[in-house]
Amino acid sequence: MALSTLLSEPVLLLDAARARHNLERMAERAAAAGVRLRPHFKTHQSHEVGRWFREVGVEEITVSSLAMAEYFAEDGWRDITLAFPFHPGMRERVEALAARVAFGIVLADAQALDGVRFSAPVDAWLKIDVGTHRTGLDPDDADGLRALAASVAGRGDVRLRGLLAHAGHSYAARGVREIAAVHEQTLSLLGRLRDELAGCGPLEISVGDTPTCSIAEAFPGAGEIRPGNFVFYDLMQWQIGACGVEDIAVAMACPVVARHPGRGELVVHGGAVHFSKDAMEFEGERIFGLAVERTSDGWGELRPDVRLVRLSQEHGIVAAPADVVVRTRPGDSLLFLPVHSCLTADAMGRYRTLAGETLGMMGRGAGGG
Amino acid sequence: MALSTLLSEPVLLLDAARARHNLERMAERAAAAGVRLRPHFKTHQSHEVGRWFREVGVEEITVSSLAMAEYFAEDGWRDITLAFPFHPGMRERVEALAARVAFGIVLADAQALDGVRFSAPVDAWLKIDVGTHRTGLDPDDADGLRALAASVAGRGDVRLRGLLAHAGHSYAARGVREIAAVHEQTLSLLGRLRDELAGCGPLEISVGDTPTCSIAEAFPGAGEIRPGNFVFYDLMQWQIGACGVEDIAVAMACPVVARHPGRGELVVHGGAVHFSKDAMEFEGERIFGLAVERTSDGWGELRPDVRLVRLSQEHGIVAAPADVVVRTRPGDSLLFLPVHSCLTADAMGRYRTLAGETLGMMGRGAGGG
Repeated sequence: MALSTLLSEPVLLLDAARARHNLERMAERAAAAGVRLRPHFKTHQSHEVGRWFREVGVEEITVSSLAMAEYFAEDGWRDITLAFPFHPGMRERVEALAARVAFGIVLADAQALDGVRFSAPVDAWLKIDVGTHRTGLDPDDADGLRALAASVAGRGDVRLRGLLAHAGHSYAARGVREIAAVHEQTLSLLGRLRDELAGCGPLEISVGDTPTCSIAEAFPGAGEIRPGNFVFYDLMQWQIGACGVEDIAVAMACPVVARHPGRGELVVHGGAVHFSKDAMEFEGERIFGLAVERTSDGWGELRPDVRLVRLSQEHGIVAAPADVVVRTRPGDSLLFLPVHSCLTADAMGRYRTLAGETLGMMGRGAGGG
Repeated sequence: MALSTLLSEPVLLLDAARARHNLERMAERAAAAGVRLRPHFKTHQSHEVGRWFREVGVEEITVSSLAMAEYFAEDGWRDITLAFPFHPGMRERVEALAARVAFGIVLADAQALDGVRFSAPVDAWLKIDVGTHRTGLDPDDADGLRALAASVAGRGDVRLRGLLAHAGHSYAARGVREIAAVHEQTLSLLGRLRDELAGCGPLEISVGDTPTCSIAEAFPGAGEIRPGNFVFYDLMQWQIGACGVEDIAVAMACPVVARHPGRGELVVHGGAVHFSKDAMEFEGERIFGLAVERTSDGWGELRPDVRLVRLSQEHGIVAAPADVVVRTRPGDSLLFLPVHSCLTADAMGRYRTLAGETLGMMGRGAGGG
């Protein structure tokens, strides 16, 4: 393993072979199911990692912010959906993007386009709330749906492309059967709404969170899927049942800075500005990461008994068995799988591959304000 | 107010007048108490904001990472304490810093210097756990304290400077009386330990979290204080009783992207990658921010009934009274005070002052790895 065991600060390790395997598998799933894979790039936010997707034939992508759209357009991506609700403050930057690439926006509010005109044509997707209750039209609100569709009708600058949903409530599922239930309900609901909007012309359906896309064999009625997290996965996806531990492609390497045998704790450099404060319940405890064994060329088995249990800005408190605390020295580094790889990557701002290469990411504070 | 009401994305507003008032007041408090103010720069991480401290006579600073030490050394700071436990992986970068500036490290483990030699002399502070139970020596562990002091004794490259503590458990205090109790206990405990180490020569005492430094009139026995958060404050400090709402100097401006009158909710652009997932309990609810009224030149009164109650990567869900939901339009921006300004600033990566100026910060992914 090219990673020095003596680090000056936390490092986000990326096992490129695992990540490439994850994306090859998802590309094959999409091909077998006959749907377009339009992966969400908010997870990795990296030109270099994005290029791995091109190698498996991906040409259309999803992003979650204007800054991210601009960052990937810069690297030659020519078909981008901004899967975040459009509002009038976005107009100028959307127009500039639509002049360069095939650009899609998402509408979650019938007044979002009030007073807005684009000089370059823009695709629009109507956002449907299939159960997450974050944004999107209530599928039972027929008047609301017609009003949302009407806000696009007859416009030359905006083309109604289809219905888009994010079944984020799949994150509350546990196991294949519960994920499958969310998946089936999502697609049957969107199919019904498409029938109700038959007068609007042919509409596509776009779905695809990582849990359902990792499990489902078919996507009846859908034209494209938009999973993102699957390129790295994380402990949350493992807990849901969307991946195995061996699929998780990122791990944080954190130097040990103090030992407290009396409390059964180690302290590492690795806090909220590295892992984010996203936590999950694990065996009745709130955790921010679980350790994995270091191997000669990366990492291997999970150590579910070595847990990140508290974080402050730079410090991570690790609950560990007595033998681990006793044999550890200041400066040793421990490896942790993150609870939420999207937020961990966003916080870290770069990757180090197991071959020792540094991969950049979109800068913090990017964008026009 | 120079801020456009039509934003394309979330913006971290900085009321420079409030921040300068906060730091002038702290400089006066330190002067009146006869202690050195060595402010913690992890809160703002900005060359520009750092220069405001110079104007009130600050010459020594505290940082929480090597990257931050390097960033501020670059801007001419010549006396820097890295208030994070030293471990052997830091050796090279500490040595390079110590060759340029007066540099202090913190020791929390008797083996932290094993095998380490510096070519440039370094100051060392012994970290004492005064009640936070994160890092530092247990004050009742007399053997441990002697071992820690012995790890520095007789070295030419490391000079024992004093005892350093962070009374982070003051964050659990509510009101002036509880904060004062933490403060008195901290200083009496450190005074006792200094007496026990009388054989080590004259030792300084360094303390100073924002709650105690905002409240205490005197710091008996201490040579310096190291508060950081006070430059901006936040809802957590307000809840503790360390500041008034009117002292909070940063607010997030977030465009509204969707409205859900049936649920009494708005959705804004402003999620975990902007606010961080640090939350606090407020009137029995877990919140990530509270709204403030927009005024002609910034912001004013708190709207405790308009609350950020859920965050995902980019979205914030706002619980709001019916009248607020009804009169809001997509693209309107709402202003929120953050729960934890240090993490919000770290996530955002830059500030916009009320005069419309953009202030930069240390880059994401800074540092040498």
